[in-house]
Amino acid sequence: MPQGVPAVVPDDGLTTRQRRNSALLAVHTGDGKGKSTAAFGMAMRAWNAGLDIGVFQFVKNAKWKVGEETAMTALGELHDRTGQGGPVQWHKMGSGWSWIRHGDAETDHAAQAREGWTEIARRLREETHDFYVLDEFTYPLGWGWIELDEVLDALAERPGKQHVVITGRRAPEGLVAAADLVTDMTKTKHPMDAGRKGQKGIEW
Amino acid sequence: MPQGVPAVVPDDGLTTRQRRNSALLAVHTGDGKGKSTAAFGMAMRAWNAGLDIGVFQFVKNAKWKVGEETAMTALGELHDRTGQGGPVQWHKMGSGWSWIRHGDAETDHAAQAREGWTEIARRLREETHDFYVLDEFTYPLGWGWIELDEVLDALAERPGKQHVVITGRRAPEGLVAAADLVTDMTKTKHPMDAGRKGQKGIEW
Repeated sequence: MPQGVPAVVPDDGLTTRQRRNSALLAVHTGDGKGKSTAAFGMAMRAWNAGLDIGVFQFVKNAKWKVGEETAMTALGELHDRTGQGGPVQWHKMGSGWSWIRHGDAETDHAAQAREGWTEIARRLREETHDFYVLDEFTYPLGWGWIELDEVLDALAERPGKQHVVITGRRAPEGLVAAADLVTDMTKTKHPMDAGRKGQKGIEW
Repeated sequence: MPQGVPAVVPDDGLTTRQRRNSALLAVHTGDGKGKSTAAFGMAMRAWNAGLDIGVFQFVKNAKWKVGEETAMTALGELHDRTGQGGPVQWHKMGSGWSWIRHGDAETDHAAQAREGWTEIARRLREETHDFYVLDEFTYPLGWGWIELDEVLDALAERPGKQHVVITGRRAPEGLVAAADLVTDMTKTKHPMDAGRKGQKGIEW
């Protein structure tokens, strides 16, 4: 466990406090479990610190995340009712993004993914949230639906202190290079290998 | 993302449903971030499925997990008040286990760790919880404070359907062999390497 002692003190002209409080870009990648789960665990921690949370799920079928969505939404409602923690918004591509009134399930997935990214880029410019989860965002990047350079620019130029966590397999090199924290989740052993199927409360 | 299609169908005489519903032993190990965070993310999902959650933290100083503790406890209180989700208990070794009235910070850490394990073994026998997080449990195992064989026996013999997630670096081989799901979190890049210290909402 890190005990708060940095390995090196960089010569960047910043105070320890400035460095500590700078915005984090984290990437959870690899073929193992826990990429999204760890991102939502981080969101839970950010909620407790009173940060404004925005989750954006870049998957057509979101059934595997319903547990996290319900729990995080419950925490957001707790904030709205009692002031504890921070507010939570959860948006998913599956049924058309929730900010788009004319959500049309027949829309082209690539176009939906781009719409999602355009909205996120707008929110980053306007500092809408403090903590963003871009779940499974590496896939539309890998498929060329969203331009990596555009994403890297928007992340590099994001004002204030907005933390961003991006999950998904095969994170592009440029994204890994830009990130402050990259964790590779490696599958050592998985029950699906032994012929088990997913179960409620564990897999979704 | 696993889509529920097992790689092989084992010849173990169980139906798919029986296999799906069997209890899971998961281990999150490796030197990277996200071991505990992913475990608490899983607990959030289990909470949503109405499972009874028991978290046991095997660390003397628990400051790094206060965000998860507060959020999970808030979800547990939500359950107690409204019936949504499942109940949550969060126990930590740091201040003497919460089920011990005479919590004495001066007690030997090894003895405290053993007391913790003894209680968990009792709960497993009595099917007290549905979903256990044994956070940083690999350390007292590695230090020889708790007998690995005793743990493996108790896990193998646990009745009913009790899921157990164990976190920490250097998981012992025997534990890895016994587990259904092992994920190795590998550090690719970490902000502490660049001289940053932890910050509220992100690191704790």
